[in-house]
Amino acid sequence: MAITTALTRLLGIPHPIILAPMGGVAGGRLAAAVSQAGGFGMIGGGYGNPKAGYGGTSWMDEQFRAAGNAQIGVGYITWSLQQFPELFDQAMERSPKVFGLAFGDEMQFAPRIKAAGVKLLCQVQDLDGAKRALDAGADIVVAQGTEAGGHGKSGRTTLTLTPAVVDIAGEIPVVAAGGLSDGRGLAAALMLGASGILVGTRFWATPEALGSDRVKQLLTLARSDDTQRTRVFDIVRELPWPDGYTGRALVNDFSRKWHGNEGALEKNLTRETEAYWTAARAGDTNTSVVFAGEGLDLIHDIKPAGEIVRTIAADAEDLLTSRAGIEIG
Amino acid sequence: MAITTALTRLLGIPHPIILAPMGGVAGGRLAAAVSQAGGFGMIGGGYGNPKAGYGGTSWMDEQFRAAGNAQIGVGYITWSLQQFPELFDQAMERSPKVFGLAFGDEMQFAPRIKAAGVKLLCQVQDLDGAKRALDAGADIVVAQGTEAGGHGKSGRTTLTLTPAVVDIAGEIPVVAAGGLSDGRGLAAALMLGASGILVGTRFWATPEALGSDRVKQLLTLARSDDTQRTRVFDIVRELPWPDGYTGRALVNDFSRKWHGNEGALEKNLTRETEAYWTAARAGDTNTSVVFAGEGLDLIHDIKPAGEIVRTIAADAEDLLTSRAGIEIG
Repeated sequence: MAITTALTRLLGIPHPIILAPMGGVAGGRLAAAVSQAGGFGMIGGGYGNPKAGYGGTSWMDEQFRAAGNAQIGVGYITWSLQQFPELFDQAMERSPKVFGLAFGDEMQFAPRIKAAGVKLLCQVQDLDGAKRALDAGADIVVAQGTEAGGHGKSGRTTLTLTPAVVDIAGEIPVVAAGGLSDGRGLAAALMLGASGILVGTRFWATPEALGSDRVKQLLTLARSDDTQRTRVFDIVRELPWPDGYTGRALVNDFSRKWHGNEGALEKNLTRETEAYWTAARAGDTNTSVVFAGEGLDLIHDIKPAGEIVRTIAADAEDLLTSRAGIEIG
Repeated sequence: MAITTALTRLLGIPHPIILAPMGGVAGGRLAAAVSQAGGFGMIGGGYGNPKAGYGGTSWMDEQFRAAGNAQIGVGYITWSLQQFPELFDQAMERSPKVFGLAFGDEMQFAPRIKAAGVKLLCQVQDLDGAKRALDAGADIVVAQGTEAGGHGKSGRTTLTLTPAVVDIAGEIPVVAAGGLSDGRGLAAALMLGASGILVGTRFWATPEALGSDRVKQLLTLARSDDTQRTRVFDIVRELPWPDGYTGRALVNDFSRKWHGNEGALEKNLTRETEAYWTAARAGDTNTSVVFAGEGLDLIHDIKPAGEIVRTIAADAEDLLTSRAGIEIG
């Protein structure tokens, strides 16, 4: 069994499930595991800035090597990639199947991506963003709701943004993102008119993801109500995010202290930044950020990425065909 | 054709669509129209406080009369109803099929509702609320995401709260609420494990809803990105909402001025309250509140409530059976 949609046809994949290119988490090994199981894996290049603790050309080389021959894509934070043109060139030399751009104006890169025959995936958080992505020639538009872990916006949710983007996207496949962790989520997204889903946090709790086992364990224990959109981790890490963006992360001692007191944090930045990085290097998640989405309530275990792909697909297929508990007639 | 779920069986209705008991908007005429079309209508008693511009025993008498013989329910704001015991008694004397409680501790009313054989519907915004509602003996749990128009919370979205509540609700039907305006939303909610949906804003844009034509027209023109959760309209109306609740409303001149400056609003309350009510009486929606949900992008016209019920149901049935654009096999 398999679910065929405009997305699976476009990418030639059995299951309409894309790995979110989580910066520093979705490395080559995870991307390959998702693709080999019939989904579509993407390496998360993130900021492209080695100061973020990952990224840069040699880190990317390592991730491309880890992905081996699997058909994968690569995703970057648009506004940050603009400072690292060598990373764009490096990725394009690898001929990724998909180039993902999120958070910023796609037009700086879109023409070169399209000209190379690489599929352009644009992640948007509102209707204006969707219109901009469509104008830029997006082959796939990801409608990212506020549920999503990591960076995004607070305005719109996956449930309402997805059909609204579908209504203006014409033949371009729309992929729902944010809060989607299981087969119910995939089936629901398809009913909203999406051609697939982009899944982040669920794939972090896998052996193949980068990052410590401790953080992965934390994701299986924390609950959706423990997450919050905030700017405090960007402020302390001195990341110049444009207005309107926040990151959904687990609430911890650091965010409890500074969320809502951003001005005070900015005044104490030198001291707090030093303390933050000391804690981060020590793996202290009471201070350092653990990004996580609102789908956490549905994540209870660490399991192989391939198993997650197959389970989400099979559960969605089952729901869409048997419709447990729902009779129509 | 009809969709049968635990909710339709419990209420004996053809379509799993409940009218949100919007205070002062969902009167007897609208409730009856929804029920007569095969959904389930509820009168919105709201605060129960005539100072809100509607409500009180004679207003409720009028609404019950307008509903005629239709099988309907009634819904109140729990924390406010506690101050108006005569309204609880009045509603119970009418033997509504369903008594809805939202925003507050259900236990003050739940035993009497259950003892009378009236179905208890509890609307919750997080998992703790869902557990409390189940402990109180809820017959229906409404999982209300932040997408919802009017009062609610900002923490959780319909997409992630619904399956999380389903996972703890056992045999009790869960109804999804917030951002649901069309057949895609109903089909998606059913895939998430809900037994039905509760729809607000979409039913406001009907001839049967209370309120001015001008406001209804505004709902068809405004977009989802024009809505915002805020406390400013509660502050100026001097409504003592418990911590954590906000109202999703259209952004207007008043909220642009005061949202984020709540302290200053409180300092100027006497002046602002007088100006607010003057504007409200004049129907000036640049100042007075128009509650609206994030499903607005999907609402483009004013049409009869019965047509909305039938269209949502038929579109969901069609999606669930034909799965346009999705092939499985």
